[in-house]
Amino acid sequence: MTTTTPNVLRSAYQRSVAAYWNSERDPVNIRLGEVDGLYHHHYGLGDYDPSVLEGPEQTRDDRIIRELHRLETAQAAVLLDHLGDISPQDRLLDAGSGRGGTSFMAADRFGCQVDGVTISETQVEFADDQAVRRGVADRVRFHFRNMLDTGFEAGSRRAIWTNETTMYVDLLPLFAEFARLLEFGGRYVCITGCYNDVTGGRSKAVSRIDEHYTCNIHPRSAYFKAMAANGLVPISVLDLTSQTIPYWELRAKSSVATGIEDPFLTAYREGSFHYLLITADRA
Amino acid sequence: MTTTTPNVLRSAYQRSVAAYWNSERDPVNIRLGEVDGLYHHHYGLGDYDPSVLEGPEQTRDDRIIRELHRLETAQAAVLLDHLGDISPQDRLLDAGSGRGGTSFMAADRFGCQVDGVTISETQVEFADDQAVRRGVADRVRFHFRNMLDTGFEAGSRRAIWTNETTMYVDLLPLFAEFARLLEFGGRYVCITGCYNDVTGGRSKAVSRIDEHYTCNIHPRSAYFKAMAANGLVPISVLDLTSQTIPYWELRAKSSVATGIEDPFLTAYREGSFHYLLITADRA
Amino acid sequence: MTTTTPNVLRSAYQRSVAAYWNSERDPVNIRLGEVDGLYHHHYGLGDYDPSVLEGPEQTRDDRIIRELHRLETAQAAVLLDHLGDISPQDRLLDAGSGRGGTSFMAADRFGCQVDGVTISETQVEFADDQAVRRGVADRVRFHFRNMLDTGFEAGSRRAIWTNETTMYVDLLPLFAEFARLLEFGGRYVCITGCYNDVTGGRSKAVSRIDEHYTCNIHPRSAYFKAMAANGLVPISVLDLTSQTIPYWELRAKSSVATGIEDPFLTAYREGSFHYLLITADRA
Amino acid sequence: MTTTTPNVLRSAYQRSVAAYWNSERDPVNIRLGEVDGLYHHHYGLGDYDPSVLEGPEQTRDDRIIRELHRLETAQAAVLLDHLGDISPQDRLLDAGSGRGGTSFMAADRFGCQVDGVTISETQVEFADDQAVRRGVADRVRFHFRNMLDTGFEAGSRRAIWTNETTMYVDLLPLFAEFARLLEFGGRYVCITGCYNDVTGGRSKAVSRIDEHYTCNIHPRSAYFKAMAANGLVPISVLDLTSQTIPYWELRAKSSVATGIEDPFLTAYREGSFHYLLITADRA
Amino acid sequence: MTTTTPNVLRSAYQRSVAAYWNSERDPVNIRLGEVDGLYHHHYGLGDYDPSVLEGPEQTRDDRIIRELHRLETAQAAVLLDHLGDISPQDRLLDAGSGRGGTSFMAADRFGCQVDGVTISETQVEFADDQAVRRGVADRVRFHFRNMLDTGFEAGSRRAIWTNETTMYVDLLPLFAEFARLLEFGGRYVCITGCYNDVTGGRSKAVSRIDEHYTCNIHPRSAYFKAMAANGLVPISVLDLTSQTIPYWELRAKSSVATGIEDPFLTAYREGSFHYLLITADRA
Amino acid sequence: MTTTTPNVLRSAYQRSVAAYWNSERDPVNIRLGEVDGLYHHHYGLGDYDPSVLEGPEQTRDDRIIRELHRLETAQAAVLLDHLGDISPQDRLLDAGSGRGGTSFMAADRFGCQVDGVTISETQVEFADDQAVRRGVADRVRFHFRNMLDTGFEAGSRRAIWTNETTMYVDLLPLFAEFARLLEFGGRYVCITGCYNDVTGGRSKAVSRIDEHYTCNIHPRSAYFKAMAANGLVPISVLDLTSQTIPYWELRAKSSVATGIEDPFLTAYREGSFHYLLITADRA
Repeated sequence: MTTTTPNVLRSAYQRSVAAYWNSERDPVNIRLGEVDGLYHHHYGLGDYDPSVLEGPEQTRDDRIIRELHRLETAQAAVLLDHLGDISPQDRLLDAGSGRGGTSFMAADRFGCQVDGVTISETQVEFADDQAVRRGVADRVRFHFRNMLDTGFEAGSRRAIWTNETTMYVDLLPLFAEFARLLEFGGRYVCITGCYNDVTGGRSKAVSRIDEHYTCNIHPRSAYFKAMAANGLVPISVLDLTSQTIPYWELRAKSSVATGIEDPFLTAYREGSFHYLLITADRA
Repeated sequence: MTTTTPNVLRSAYQRSVAAYWNSERDPVNIRLGEVDGLYHHHYGLGDYDPSVLEGPEQTRDDRIIRELHRLETAQAAVLLDHLGDISPQDRLLDAGSGRGGTSFMAADRFGCQVDGVTISETQVEFADDQAVRRGVADRVRFHFRNMLDTGFEAGSRRAIWTNETTMYVDLLPLFAEFARLLEFGGRYVCITGCYNDVTGGRSKAVSRIDEHYTCNIHPRSAYFKAMAANGLVPISVLDLTSQTIPYWELRAKSSVATGIEDPFLTAYREGSFHYLLITADRA
Repeated sequence: MTTTTPNVLRSAYQRSVAAYWNSERDPVNIRLGEVDGLYHHHYGLGDYDPSVLEGPEQTRDDRIIRELHRLETAQAAVLLDHLGDISPQDRLLDAGSGRGGTSFMAADRFGCQVDGVTISETQVEFADDQAVRRGVADRVRFHFRNMLDTGFEAGSRRAIWTNETTMYVDLLPLFAEFARLLEFGGRYVCITGCYNDVTGGRSKAVSRIDEHYTCNIHPRSAYFKAMAANGLVPISVLDLTSQTIPYWELRAKSSVATGIEDPFLTAYREGSFHYLLITADRA
Repeated sequence: MTTTTPNVLRSAYQRSVAAYWNSERDPVNIRLGEVDGLYHHHYGLGDYDPSVLEGPEQTRDDRIIRELHRLETAQAAVLLDHLGDISPQDRLLDAGSGRGGTSFMAADRFGCQVDGVTISETQVEFADDQAVRRGVADRVRFHFRNMLDTGFEAGSRRAIWTNETTMYVDLLPLFAEFARLLEFGGRYVCITGCYNDVTGGRSKAVSRIDEHYTCNIHPRSAYFKAMAANGLVPISVLDLTSQTIPYWELRAKSSVATGIEDPFLTAYREGSFHYLLITADRA
Repeated sequence: MTTTTPNVLRSAYQRSVAAYWNSERDPVNIRLGEVDGLYHHHYGLGDYDPSVLEGPEQTRDDRIIRELHRLETAQAAVLLDHLGDISPQDRLLDAGSGRGGTSFMAADRFGCQVDGVTISETQVEFADDQAVRRGVADRVRFHFRNMLDTGFEAGSRRAIWTNETTMYVDLLPLFAEFARLLEFGGRYVCITGCYNDVTGGRSKAVSRIDEHYTCNIHPRSAYFKAMAANGLVPISVLDLTSQTIPYWELRAKSSVATGIEDPFLTAYREGSFHYLLITADRA
Repeated sequence: MTTTTPNVLRSAYQRSVAAYWNSERDPVNIRLGEVDGLYHHHYGLGDYDPSVLEGPEQTRDDRIIRELHRLETAQAAVLLDHLGDISPQDRLLDAGSGRGGTSFMAADRFGCQVDGVTISETQVEFADDQAVRRGVADRVRFHFRNMLDTGFEAGSRRAIWTNETTMYVDLLPLFAEFARLLEFGGRYVCITGCYNDVTGGRSKAVSRIDEHYTCNIHPRSAYFKAMAANGLVPISVLDLTSQTIPYWELRAKSSVATGIEDPFLTAYREGSFHYLLITADRA
């Protein structure tokens, strides 16, 4: 399918990120995934049903977890809504595919081929195993590869997305690679948290999130500069901040809260951080 | 208010554009403006009421004109919705202010000071006269100035907009001037027709529009490149194409059709042309 | 000769241009070509002989057509004069080769190998057929390829030219491809119509030409920026405007006038448009 | 001395940084400054005298504090060593002057005029008061100004330094302002912590430091890119990491430790963070 | 006429160039100037009359000197031919005006105002004195100023030229200053020796010339890059090399030969050096 | 070992440089190399032992030559000190390897593989012969290749150095090639003479050196700009000027002086020229 196996982990930083995700067994990811077999590594969108907080205590936790999972699945669905017309012959790329949730949703919706790449070998294994269980291993494949240098063929992709994974890499080489991979007129969809150039530098809450995930949240401006430098032309930009706050409020009340909920809520509410969806075309 | 009167008309091209607008008495602008005294120089948004096409023939034309005007006013209202929080102390700039329609709507909504600039002296006179009639001449003023070099003070503007005027100028110097004028964190809102990099070069229909208005429609990518080069960071991008098509369909059936309706409808429908709203912050 | 067959038509725009030229049977191209078997797709240079307008009416048309053809052939000869020293071992590229006129003149003059590329399959067929008739099919070949991505080997060309074809493509990727194809010290010659940055934006007449040919005339500055960005260093720039006006004046009086003569004459005379010859070296 | 008082605090971020330093009364800064009246806001250089850890317990803390202060003063002396030849007629700028320590050392050494700028009004007051006490108020002055836009005259500075203050601002506009202020051939000296592009993205320890100080540590590469873009040409670059580690080791054992000692030591030792001295000339 | 007297000599290099020209009394400049009072500091163009080498020995030297002067005056006339339409109201700038030769020719031809700048005070004095003698001191003025920072008003110049002076300065700041000074649509004409990117790096002969004049000959590409970066758009580029070689051949045979004739002839003949005329418009 | 043999000599300039080094038999290189079989093509570092100038006349010359050689070897040792941790498995590149001196020292010190490239076939032969004599021909190899286009595999080098060879090439393509060759985190060490942007343009002495070696000494700024553009991030910059002056003073008194000693000493002492060591990481 591809001709070369590029060197996947290029720096101490990438090795530490890979190690983190190789050993990660966070209930907020695992228990939510067990609801219906779609394991997500991103946050949710939309209002939660307040009734899940009420009712019998012994099932409260389960209700919240199902509701959080519903919001995360809704988020992935919004992302897929922006991919444009995808036919079964098209090939897609999930860049930073985690345990495969969005990849499987895309494959189900469009009936096409999806490749996911991640620098966690554990995630590749997990997601490939899911592909077998879901009977789609012939067209949904996961690869231990670096999204900065995927080794896939130039012009081979109708669409690419990153679902909250761009904060682990430099945007200029990332978008150069995506521009290389996309066919002319192909589409890139990005959901990401980014900090706000207008409130100024990285706020305390944003640095707290960076520390938690060993990531490097970019300013909003960095996305548009890197796209402009690489022939990716926005057609839609949506600020989803207000739509993701309910998810965090519910999660803060759940048994699977990880402690990072407060920095997220603080950052979103003070305006130093956005939850952004960018849709761009390869020109 | 400002210290210098820069040289307004710099080239043969600008002189020809100024001459066009100085002599323009197009019913589609004049008759619609007479409905309620808001004279627009832009197109409309939203579905039209199909009933205006029915009923007595002798008032049909008047019904259509009122409906077209309603859609144009709705367009300006959508633009103003994206200006963010504006207080009465703020100063705004309407870059390419025409006969003043959007300026007056902004002044009414926010109670603040608005300056409009245009390279047509006739438009300045007309709009200043309107300001007197509307009793806002103390805070809504029109200036015979070039939007590439307004002479206004650096950092003096809370917000700037261009309502279908960017196709007359180069975007790099335009956005450099806007970046100079906006305070840190200030906002720029742009509604524009732009051609689609993805369908490729300028289509026949787009060139037809350029010829009609002696303008120079930019590719979509040019907006994002010029913003990235000038510290203007998008926070919202909306493709309004489908919402402006009804306006053109109705206009094509009206007595004030100018003949340019077909190229617009062709370009929008074939996908070679977008009607885009971009909202950006000065960082 | 080359290793890959790249995807030739990349956008709706390119497909529409290809369709135009596949179906084009314009007498101004066909009838002039029939004079001596050199089919040109460009304009002429030099004063016409006024006597062709006089004399017997029944042969007037034929006299004019022969004279127009003479001026077009003279134009191609001027272009070839700027290619520098070409030896029979060299390989040349005619980028946008049309029905092959300039390619055959180059092959005749230099005795070397010439490749022509065009996105019109009909033109490839026509020109290849001409190569057989002229007995040079072993060293003059035409290819259905995109000049933005020719698939020819890096450094394989001693010289490249574009004879009025650059208005169909973006100059940055075009000159990047030419820089890739040229050997160090190789030469690029360009004859083109470009609009004048100094008179300002695209004039009405220029947009009319764009519409007629579904092309996208660039400003003069765009050529020099794109060359500077791609290691193409001018050694000669000539403004041929005054030398091409007679051709248009004669053509306007001919039976093969297409209606675009007036916009050309207007644009040239008002100074909003140049007919430029640029010679540059690959450094 | 200067003509305008620019808007000092431009963003929520800058206001939060100013608030932090306005209320800061950190013993590690105050108690060390009280040793001899030089109040520093930076770290130290060189080996510490291990004997300060021994001896009577009741004076141990005092011995350590004096030793930490000695190392901090040594650091400022190293910075001043790189300013080049400074005469009494020269004017210097301390960009991010804190409570004035380095400014006073420079004024003492060179006998020249020094201006310090800081966005903390409390620091301006404190440092101006120190200038009076030291009898140098006529030539050492502190200003409530933003170092991105100082309002000082172009070309007025022989030398500028930043002593661990660049992590609060964007480097491109900072170095543009410094290039404006320096005379041709003037000098800029920077001591800073920067993260290491080679280990990769921002490490956990670096984000912890960012969070602690609400700052935004730049990658090493950012300094050289921003200098190259602004005519600042390095003449000396020294990696001081190994020379600053002893300071942190001693501080970790002191009563004035703030808790940030561990992240610094971790980051320096794992190689994800450098303590760098860059000396550059304005060309 | 201007508001500021900028710092003229910014570096040791500029001071050494100024010192050279302040003390220069080269017969090739002085004796030729004495022919008719036009003192040139540039080379000549065109074939020389071979008869000057024949005839009586005692007047041979005088004949050669008059012929060399005729060729230098012819060169300046060619430069002025490219300035475009200049009216008596226009203001011109001779950047690097030497003893004023080209300035006086321009003033005579166009009847307009000319300012010359040079960093040699001796040249300013000499040329101002000539202006008095020629009765044009009211409209031809010479200034002790740096052409990189003239202090003249923005947009004040209809045309600017450099007659073999650009090898003393960096082209990027030079053309930035010219772009600032020229009105929109204004013209810049440059005659210069430049080395050839295509033969490769600076040849021995070119370095010999650099050493002789303490100058810094630029590669041909540098001119076009710096123009593209500063909105100067070429309209004509002529390679005058073959037209200047006769001048050097004659000069080599004259009594005023300085020894630099051989390197020039070698460089021109081996193709490592061009004598170029570039005409560009300010867009 | 490599797949392609690129075209080595691309221009007349490169051919002249190659010819120079192919015929060079300069005693300052040959006689010093004969001391111990390390043939250097660079200058020395450190104070010389003044006693070599005293003592018996007949061995004075030999003493000086041995001392000059000791200083040159010391220089190469300083360069190697900056290569960082090199293991026997690593591959190094000596770009501009001359007769192989530094390559052999690196191979001896690190026990690893070294490739040297030079455009002089005579040097390749000479150095390959040395490799056989030294018994390291299996891991030290010399290649007739252009350092701008080595043909080695991307990412194949742990470290690269240039020991006074960068003045023969353009830095932008050179550092692009080095960035391509180095693994992520690999190191580049450069010792070079560069002229000083701060004293201004190229001084007479610098042009004299350029002429002597047919080279093209770059300004200091050019190194940092070209590194910034190619992902090479400085970690150490040292001005070695004062440490190389003694070598030149001794050489001026030796029998192997070539006449270029005075320009070097003048340039170093007047400050128009630096001897710089730059160490950078590939990020």
